[in-house]
Amino acid sequence: MNFADRLLAAIDRKKTPLIVGLDPVYESLPATITGRCGGNDPAARVDAILQFARRVLGAVAPHVPAVKINSAYFESYHWRGVQAYIHLIQEAQALGLLVIGDVKRADIGHTAAQYAQAALADHEFTNGNKLIGPDAITINPYFGFDGVAPFLDVARRQDKGIFVLLRTSNASAGEIQEIPTADGRPLFMHTAGLIDKWGRDLIGAHGWSGVGAVVGATSGESIARLRGVMPHTPFLIPGIGAQSGSLTDCAHAFRHGAGAVISASRSIIFAYRESLYQQLPPENWIQAVEQATLRTKTRITEVLDL
Amino acid sequence: MNFADRLLAAIDRKKTPLIVGLDPVYESLPATITGRCGGNDPAARVDAILQFARRVLGAVAPHVPAVKINSAYFESYHWRGVQAYIHLIQEAQALGLLVIGDVKRADIGHTAAQYAQAALADHEFTNGNKLIGPDAITINPYFGFDGVAPFLDVARRQDKGIFVLLRTSNASAGEIQEIPTADGRPLFMHTAGLIDKWGRDLIGAHGWSGVGAVVGATSGESIARLRGVMPHTPFLIPGIGAQSGSLTDCAHAFRHGAGAVISASRSIIFAYRESLYQQLPPENWIQAVEQATLRTKTRITEVLDL
Repeated sequence: MNFADRLLAAIDRKKTPLIVGLDPVYESLPATITGRCGGNDPAARVDAILQFARRVLGAVAPHVPAVKINSAYFESYHWRGVQAYIHLIQEAQALGLLVIGDVKRADIGHTAAQYAQAALADHEFTNGNKLIGPDAITINPYFGFDGVAPFLDVARRQDKGIFVLLRTSNASAGEIQEIPTADGRPLFMHTAGLIDKWGRDLIGAHGWSGVGAVVGATSGESIARLRGVMPHTPFLIPGIGAQSGSLTDCAHAFRHGAGAVISASRSIIFAYRESLYQQLPPENWIQAVEQATLRTKTRITEVLDL
Repeated sequence: MNFADRLLAAIDRKKTPLIVGLDPVYESLPATITGRCGGNDPAARVDAILQFARRVLGAVAPHVPAVKINSAYFESYHWRGVQAYIHLIQEAQALGLLVIGDVKRADIGHTAAQYAQAALADHEFTNGNKLIGPDAITINPYFGFDGVAPFLDVARRQDKGIFVLLRTSNASAGEIQEIPTADGRPLFMHTAGLIDKWGRDLIGAHGWSGVGAVVGATSGESIARLRGVMPHTPFLIPGIGAQSGSLTDCAHAFRHGAGAVISASRSIIFAYRESLYQQLPPENWIQAVEQATLRTKTRITEVLDL
């Protein structure tokens, strides 16, 4: 089943386009976890992060269709972190969550094919073991189609998805993405056309493609313009919460209640650090995570009128 | 000592701007290695790749200033591959080679800082262990300055370098990189200005910056134009050999014999597969690697008149 259709079905089941971003930082973990198994040694820190992330997955799994796991926060612990990242993918999928691996990879030819194997593909080994890759990953469009094709190949063969970076929400994104091109449009509108084209032969039963785009929530006008030229492209909108993008802007991404997932990361996984949840006993930190998930879900339903 | 100065000193010592790219693929390894320790199991394959790569490092270390190790070929073996990649960095540096980690990472803010820690920084652990990062890495400019700043921070603190993707050599690179902008120049000329600016406060004693650019060898005219607007930026030019970029084109990157490193990968590390070296007994495959290194070095010296 096409990734876009699987994503839509999961959104229907959980009744929300909210997905939870997992960007765990050791220093922000609850003391009840770092006190028990933390320390300065990388193996102990990875262990603490893994325990934390497992609890978060368990708490959010009943409420959201997918998690976005950001590989960078694991790679900073080198091979131990990568092993934890891959374990978490398996565990999230066992909980019925779709997983978006936020890896932002890109290269060309042979090398891109290696990244597609590394970051997206499922693997079956001769000893009968399986390693399931994420359901979708984020990639960077700077190489043009050559940098995208090997990921599309895996997506097509294994019913996976890709989200191509398009218009990001950081302050300096405009330095390249908004450069005015000769036809008067900013570069990202041109990139939008490419992404639309790359996704045309991966369109599923509901009219949405397995090739999506990462579109920052801090540019409402851009979201509307992009939706106009990308009728089949699901948007992955990060930046709700800690990055305080406007939820109202996200509304432009939707058509008949579909068309985007909205990701919240630190505002949910580190909710116990916020004043709103200070009355909870520290060992109940996971309740703050669950409550923040439900609150964000409600806010999205209200603002987007879903 | 500034990365650019370290690179220049190494080029002087080895009398060549040639660097060897390590993109090992299990299927292309010599039978004498796969026969001894290979197999279908990922651990055995990583072991074979590691043994192969160690031999290659030993053979090329006396002849070239640096190796470019492409992370993708290790990441496809997940955590085992990442561990091998990191081991190889330590071993290459112990052999006196500079190491460019070809990782093409990019993200923003907190996440980019994690990647800078993961992919570039040296680490000292409380137990006295050290993990040395590569001397430089490749990164992607699509996020603008926010995506580059955290890498610059590590580069400044630890005398490391970065090479920003600018004009790549793949067929579809033009889809984004050559888009005509409103001022009539292709996008990559605009990106060139950004990279030049980002590197201005990392210029070393010889006038070259710790911020370099990846410029494909298949675009000679572009190389000349880029050198014109980037007087301080060292170029990393891949695509000599297997990708058959023109060496003559590379000449435009140099000023007084400095200004670029030229990377050859498959044509050197898999030289024993080429007809030229078929007369060598299979167990002497490493001689083909060494001879191909010396041949390429000679060819570069002749064509570039160094």
